[in-house]
Amino acid sequence: MFDASLYGYFRSSAAYRVRIALNLKGIAPDLVFVHLRKDAQHDPAYMRLNPQALVPTLVHDGHAIGQSLAILEYLEEMAPRPPLLPRASADRARVRQIALAVACEIHPLNNLRVLRYLENRMKQNDRARIDWQRRWIAEGFDALERMLSRDPATGRFCHADAPTLADVCLVPQLANARRVELPLNAYPTLLRIEAEALALPAFDAARPEKQPDAE
Amino acid sequence: MFDASLYGYFRSSAAYRVRIALNLKGIAPDLVFVHLRKDAQHDPAYMRLNPQALVPTLVHDGHAIGQSLAILEYLEEMAPRPPLLPRASADRARVRQIALAVACEIHPLNNLRVLRYLENRMKQNDRARIDWQRRWIAEGFDALERMLSRDPATGRFCHADAPTLADVCLVPQLANARRVELPLNAYPTLLRIEAEALALPAFDAARPEKQPDAE
Repeated sequence: MFDASLYGYFRSSAAYRVRIALNLKGIAPDLVFVHLRKDAQHDPAYMRLNPQALVPTLVHDGHAIGQSLAILEYLEEMAPRPPLLPRASADRARVRQIALAVACEIHPLNNLRVLRYLENRMKQNDRARIDWQRRWIAEGFDALERMLSRDPATGRFCHADAPTLADVCLVPQLANARRVELPLNAYPTLLRIEAEALALPAFDAARPEKQPDAE
Repeated sequence: MFDASLYGYFRSSAAYRVRIALNLKGIAPDLVFVHLRKDAQHDPAYMRLNPQALVPTLVHDGHAIGQSLAILEYLEEMAPRPPLLPRASADRARVRQIALAVACEIHPLNNLRVLRYLENRMKQNDRARIDWQRRWIAEGFDALERMLSRDPATGRFCHADAPTLADVCLVPQLANARRVELPLNAYPTLLRIEAEALALPAFDAARPEKQPDAE
């Protein structure tokens, strides 16, 4: 029995990653909803748990852990079955590289706080902000499609035939890509893997639109 | 003996992280310089190693690994002495959270490709681009100062009294902050830790200005 609380928001793709991993590992945390568009992440009580004022936060065994990838690695250590990282270090590095290609190169540029800065401080209109988002997703997906389509280590999923942290990060990013209507026909490998993943209940149940706080 | 090649660029703070970790672990890789301002990262030969066209890339044992945090975790697994992650999972999560607070929340926004987009596509002048960089570093450092100054787990370094992946990420980000002349007086804990770190030869020798390709 793994008693934990997850502070999240239905539309946060970082929270979506953690929801998938928890589902894959059969962990059902208490859910606490932090309404980002109402700035609930800046409530002093929440900021004591997460001084970065970001979601998600996992609270387990008296520890409050922020940053989705730190949470995913923690879950991997504390609840290792089923594994979401392969065994060999070079394979683990490959999976982490794919996960970080999403988490460090795509997602941070399209965060709400960044879009707000572009709008309010740089006076960029809707069109320019959509172009910005599409640009970084497309550049990241171009690289991921190159990495995944050419490598025999790719299987049914990003790495071999079972889901890993790479898929856990990729699937939420594809959902974001659809929200900004990025054409996806250049990414057949990513789409094939997404379909494999969403056929699993653990991925499907973690979708933003299936969350209790979805609008 | 750990035979490896590191593809980097003196000014890349992601490469700087990996240089520090290699130095701490006593590994002296062959160095290959990828001149980012001349777009050498887009050479087809380099892109076969790193389909993301980013530095650094570590080549070891026939594997080419990109993404600095994936490289750092790989080194931790393959060359565990001295450890750059603590033993307990909650402590490891804390260190990773700090490292990711730099690698996911600050650094991606101030990448060269992003600054070029702001200049060329959004027609933002020097002033606006400097303000942009300062804003995200300041927001990230505000959170890190809150996290580190209030937590008894902070010691001489970000976590206890020996360097970890958190310091490995923090110190290069402070160097970037100085390049855009962000005032740092609000960050006494970060500055204290930086001074501790740079007093160690492993950190000092990894500084951008001490690299063979420094301009």
